[in-house]
Amino acid sequence: MADRKFALGLDFGTESGRALLVDVATGEEVATEVWEYSHGVLDRSLPDGTSLPPDWALQDPQDYIETLRQTVPAVLGASGVSADSVVGVGIDFTSCTMLPTDAEGTPLCCKDEWRSNPHAWVKLWKHHAAQPEADKINETARRRGEAWLSRYGGKYSSEWFFSKVWQILDEAPEVYEAADRMIEAADWIVWQLTGRETRNLCTAGYKAIYDKRTGFVSDEFLAELDPRLEHVIDEKMMRKVLPLGTRAGNLTPAMAELTGLRAGTPVAVGNVDAHVSVPAAGISDVGKMLMIMGTSICHMVLGRDSKPVEGMCGVVEDGILPGFFGYEAGQSGAGDILAWFVRTWTPGEIQGRSAHEYLEKQAARLKPGETGLLALDWWNGNRSILVDTHLSGLLLGATLDTTLADIYRSLIESIAFGTRMIIENFERYGIRVSELYACGGMPERNKLLMQIFADVTGRSIKLARSSQTPALGSAMFGAVAAGRRGGGYDTIYDAIARMGGVRDVTYNPDPANHAIYNELFLEYAKLHDYFGRGANDVMKRLRGLKARQRG
Amino acid sequence: MADRKFALGLDFGTESGRALLVDVATGEEVATEVWEYSHGVLDRSLPDGTSLPPDWALQDPQDYIETLRQTVPAVLGASGVSADSVVGVGIDFTSCTMLPTDAEGTPLCCKDEWRSNPHAWVKLWKHHAAQPEADKINETARRRGEAWLSRYGGKYSSEWFFSKVWQILDEAPEVYEAADRMIEAADWIVWQLTGRETRNLCTAGYKAIYDKRTGFVSDEFLAELDPRLEHVIDEKMMRKVLPLGTRAGNLTPAMAELTGLRAGTPVAVGNVDAHVSVPAAGISDVGKMLMIMGTSICHMVLGRDSKPVEGMCGVVEDGILPGFFGYEAGQSGAGDILAWFVRTWTPGEIQGRSAHEYLEKQAARLKPGETGLLALDWWNGNRSILVDTHLSGLLLGATLDTTLADIYRSLIESIAFGTRMIIENFERYGIRVSELYACGGMPERNKLLMQIFADVTGRSIKLARSSQTPALGSAMFGAVAAGRRGGGYDTIYDAIARMGGVRDVTYNPDPANHAIYNELFLEYAKLHDYFGRGANDVMKRLRGLKARQRG
Repeated sequence: MADRKFALGLDFGTESGRALLVDVATGEEVATEVWEYSHGVLDRSLPDGTSLPPDWALQDPQDYIETLRQTVPAVLGASGVSADSVVGVGIDFTSCTMLPTDAEGTPLCCKDEWRSNPHAWVKLWKHHAAQPEADKINETARRRGEAWLSRYGGKYSSEWFFSKVWQILDEAPEVYEAADRMIEAADWIVWQLTGRETRNLCTAGYKAIYDKRTGFVSDEFLAELDPRLEHVIDEKMMRKVLPLGTRAGNLTPAMAELTGLRAGTPVAVGNVDAHVSVPAAGISDVGKMLMIMGTSICHMVLGRDSKPVEGMCGVVEDGILPGFFGYEAGQSGAGDILAWFVRTWTPGEIQGRSAHEYLEKQAARLKPGETGLLALDWWNGNRSILVDTHLSGLLLGATLDTTLADIYRSLIESIAFGTRMIIENFERYGIRVSELYACGGMPERNKLLMQIFADVTGRSIKLARSSQTPALGSAMFGAVAAGRRGGGYDTIYDAIARMGGVRDVTYNPDPANHAIYNELFLEYAKLHDYFGRGANDVMKRLRGLKARQRG
Repeated sequence: MADRKFALGLDFGTESGRALLVDVATGEEVATEVWEYSHGVLDRSLPDGTSLPPDWALQDPQDYIETLRQTVPAVLGASGVSADSVVGVGIDFTSCTMLPTDAEGTPLCCKDEWRSNPHAWVKLWKHHAAQPEADKINETARRRGEAWLSRYGGKYSSEWFFSKVWQILDEAPEVYEAADRMIEAADWIVWQLTGRETRNLCTAGYKAIYDKRTGFVSDEFLAELDPRLEHVIDEKMMRKVLPLGTRAGNLTPAMAELTGLRAGTPVAVGNVDAHVSVPAAGISDVGKMLMIMGTSICHMVLGRDSKPVEGMCGVVEDGILPGFFGYEAGQSGAGDILAWFVRTWTPGEIQGRSAHEYLEKQAARLKPGETGLLALDWWNGNRSILVDTHLSGLLLGATLDTTLADIYRSLIESIAFGTRMIIENFERYGIRVSELYACGGMPERNKLLMQIFADVTGRSIKLARSSQTPALGSAMFGAVAAGRRGGGYDTIYDAIARMGGVRDVTYNPDPANHAIYNELFLEYAKLHDYFGRGANDVMKRLRGLKARQRG
């Protein structure tokens, strides 16, 4: 153990944070520890009882610090690895998860005078209350013919940085005024670890309209949104954006005390959970799409140039790996649709098994098309390629002999059709997708789902080796921050070769099943376009009526 | 009791038969008795184990005789009514339920040599295996421009008389040959009771292409279907068709022995359960639609003339009440859709209540439109107005917060929209529907459903007084068979005035709810036409694929 070197990956998720200690030479994961945030997601009220409007989702930054305190000493202790053997630290975060702080980086919500103001807290990625601001950003960008809009699939999201910043300005100008900095949580935690404020290319590129060739969106544009926003980049952000893998700084003595790591340990600039998973899965070239499969699905793929792919979340040069254009797309519902189905429709157990297990077993006995059902996987709206949160789920083909397993299978199939729609859309724009890779919670648990994805897409699927891909990816970037001379690697590609990779198992498409799914996908595509592209906006009208009637 | 007069109604349903003894002067129901058929519905095998193909549904005529033996003495005994006080007997049956018999009326299936031949048994109304014959009947009728086709909404059903007769001829010519008579069970049981073969206008008109002005379908048409069918009417049926309420004959001594009734008691000609319910609900004029609401819904309404209403089941002059054109339409799924939902999706009980009760209570708290859902009620296909058994159910608008109660309510709403579609279609063709009447199992059990029907249709709904409307209607026709001099009535209208009627409760539409449902009905109608009228035949293609994959 003495001469082995380790890198630490810190992964900050929606409900919990995780530390993972990884052998730099082999990628072996020697210890891991998870900390469930005490406050989790604040979506009904603040800790002091202040209630929150619908669509809000906040977090307490103290939970992130607590994650460091709880997990890092634990992995060192459990593994027996000495702090001196830890060559670098990398972090990844959900994004866009952002907060207002003072000039020293203290979150406004940690100060007594702001504690009851919801806008002083961390706005989590799934905070959806900035839709009016996003709408105006899109309208203004379209009117001005802003070139950057096509880099975001033609639509800037309510989840992203400027939507959230502007919502603070709109609704709580006093908070906006008091904030010296507006910052991604990914960058904030690095600031806490190193004492140095930095901005990383990944969140800047995907969420804050930054491009390494042209820089940030123009002040003119921001001024047209709201004159008070004109100088927000210079006043409350940073123009300097660091490439991924860059050493942001070194661990402060205070953080060394808190974590048990060595003061001076190199820390990489911040990164995003989905993006950092790509190298962890061993992907270092074009043609291989990684699906991060959980409640929703993120689709990441590399390209050699920038194409205006309809409905993608974004394309950023060097945004995933240096030297490539990193493309991101996504499905807003996946595991959460199956979880909804099981939670709503079944008792927790059926015949002594968990309902998921029982349904998977029953559904696996069915052939493609045998359910007679077809679904649109829009329970949580549609991200790519329609970018429309007001769409909703559809189930078609039910008869009096339709069973639970039939529906369960058709829901899985609909999610796979959604991914196929994204793949075909990428290829239509010239971004090749030859092979699929998967990571996240679902691929390990649900073999049927993986086989259906292979059969529907007609592509083989490899599984990332690690069960904690983001944390592994972060550790890899930590090793890069250390550099070869510091016991790590000089490039992320060196790290991929040694530390990333896939498992032995591959899901290969069954040609006969694929042929049936080709038929069904045509039906899916027809319904997709009919309900999603304006021929019949019934889903939106029903949503509108529902909102009206719920008052 | 001594000078009171009674009529006996016999109602032969799908799973059981019922006797009801009714006071002729007041309509008071003094005793009732139900007998569950020993063999129920034979849809997998004959009693001797001979297995049946899919879509078959047979019955054992012995069960009908056993119903007489079990129920009639029981109602006499329970009420203390003497046989001499029973002035007449009426019967109603499911239809088209038919069987082949010898010249004496003995069912072929009761004879040893035919007992293992499925075609020798009673073909129940829901026997659906004669679809190829129905298709050829429709094709031939269209090619020949047969005028009668418009009296059946443009489509002759696989459930009806000639489809079933022709299937026997096609698949079992030896049975066809051996059968002296092909007869509706409604007429057969009357034959058994009276010793005299008759044919009633209701089943002849609605199921066997008979019209009182023009008689039966032509021999030329039948010959074109199959030369062997040319003389089926003269050879195996009867050209003479008796008006409803006619005395078919008098009870035979043998049947008097079996039932405890007086030999010589007048017996009315056969009738159909849905049709006979109209007078029982007190309806004696145009503008009032009766909904017989159970697993499916029959819609009965009177008109002053014959209109070619799209997708109706049939219009028959004097087919319900003399002097009117009786229109029938129907929804092929209703209570069975809700039963499917509860059976499939819920444990039998929720929080200590039956699932139906729990769901009704939860769903009743929702406002129209608040579910965000819209369904097409086609789980069992669509009878009126599309006449397409290959359509299937659709649920649209689901989100991650959709609940069981949301779906339950939206299913009820979809059934109500289906009825509204039928009503609007009737009115489009000039058949007025101003008021609704309901009978059957659902209206008594499900108050929420009744209110939603009122709100969706914008019409008040009255409930038939009797819980056993068909049996009451049959008793009324029994009283008419007796005539005034025999202690009954000379016309069914006299019987309606005294014996039929509704309850005190009326469901009135809520104007605000109706306004919302007007919006939702437009959405329903748009989906109805899109999926039902050929713009997107995905439901049929999915059914086809399902059948293919199930092998």
